[in-house]
Amino acid sequence: MVENETQKQTEQEISNPINLSILPMTSTVKVYGPPNSAAVSRVLACLLEKDVQFQLIPINLVRGEQKKPDYLKLQPFGQVPVFQDESITLFESRAICRYVCDKYANQGNKRLFGTNPLEKASIDQWLEVEGQNFYPPTSVLVFQLAFVPRMKIQQDENLIKQNEEKLGKVLDVYENRLGESRYLAGDEFTLADLSHLPMSRYLVNACGRGELFTSRKNVGRWWDEISTRETWKKVNEMQNSQPRQNA
Amino acid sequence: MVENETQKQTEQEISNPINLSILPMTSTVKVYGPPNSAAVSRVLACLLEKDVQFQLIPINLVRGEQKKPDYLKLQPFGQVPVFQDESITLFESRAICRYVCDKYANQGNKRLFGTNPLEKASIDQWLEVEGQNFYPPTSVLVFQLAFVPRMKIQQDENLIKQNEEKLGKVLDVYENRLGESRYLAGDEFTLADLSHLPMSRYLVNACGRGELFTSRKNVGRWWDEISTRETWKKVNEMQNSQPRQNA
Repeated sequence: MVENETQKQTEQEISNPINLSILPMTSTVKVYGPPNSAAVSRVLACLLEKDVQFQLIPINLVRGEQKKPDYLKLQPFGQVPVFQDESITLFESRAICRYVCDKYANQGNKRLFGTNPLEKASIDQWLEVEGQNFYPPTSVLVFQLAFVPRMKIQQDENLIKQNEEKLGKVLDVYENRLGESRYLAGDEFTLADLSHLPMSRYLVNACGRGELFTSRKNVGRWWDEISTRETWKKVNEMQNSQPRQNA
Repeated sequence: MVENETQKQTEQEISNPINLSILPMTSTVKVYGPPNSAAVSRVLACLLEKDVQFQLIPINLVRGEQKKPDYLKLQPFGQVPVFQDESITLFESRAICRYVCDKYANQGNKRLFGTNPLEKASIDQWLEVEGQNFYPPTSVLVFQLAFVPRMKIQQDENLIKQNEEKLGKVLDVYENRLGESRYLAGDEFTLADLSHLPMSRYLVNACGRGELFTSRKNVGRWWDEISTRETWKKVNEMQNSQPRQNA
């Protein structure tokens, strides 16, 4: 488990994003939550892009640790992740990502949240599109297609159909957009693209709905590019190496 | 209609937020959309707080003007609002509000998006809570309770009950939070509070669900404070003076 590794890092290791999860326990940045949570993995991808060292604190969702009084003092809604850095405690993954990009502006991927107000505004716009247009239908599909079967309850076929249609319309807009620019907010990979990775991974790998991306030429090209970044592959390794949570 | 008013403003008038909707046609800031749209009114409230002059460009949603080719060039999802300011065109109301606060940092309500990175992070966190926790159940309730009856289709009682419960849990967290601080992100009214105004107004006025707020002491006090701000009353006047849209 990443959080139990105490190997001291040399500066050389720290400069290599691939080794960034091998962290000293003294790292000031803490992330509470399991890496296979979509919202946690969004924050991890951002920290790796920004070359920020962090310590991952396990929260066992199956055992309901996110609903215990001590945790609720950090995150009153009982959700993951929680982020701590020096004197600040934050929740909401997209807000955490914005904070990380602002605080660590001069390290790691310096273009992740733009380098001027106009770039930043465009990134913020597409980050909101992810949160308000892409995430809602995707989260219904991931729940219905990946989680409902495990819960031994019946899938709602109507809901699946409705949300596939909704998501299809969103991806049609992306298809046009990604015909004009390499990434959503312009010619650089940014927080706006990164924020799509967690739920897209579920949709492609756990729901068998990769065709939603690959049937659209530009969206398929974009998904190939963003999902094969070294930092995201590292997040996937952290997710795959995590033992299955048991109550 | 506000957008047809060409009365030239004196500096004194411009400094008075109450008169800010009486604008010269030469204002560089343009907002496309009807003021009674929740997302449009979020942006209007922000512009009034920041003492930013703007021109409102009508978009008739009933006639489907938001789906016409020229409009889709500005907003590819066919939603309102669109915001223009000098060389920038933006959509997504929360992203527009962040941009307005950053660009016009030194005018109007200077604390609306905080005055340092820690304040800003807290505001951004609660703004995300609004978008991800408060908005989803509220939008279902507003649609079911205010719009479905007009469409002569049957309300989904089960969906209403589920979303009242979801929203109730969110407001329980707000109740605790607002027992600790006057506003969501601290002791100042910020973008995080402002962003709740549009959908809350529908919930209280068009859905008769004000009790969700008033049954909680701190939430009720907070709602009274934020909904009686001069800038929000001005937005309400703009909404009430708008002729009902007909196809």
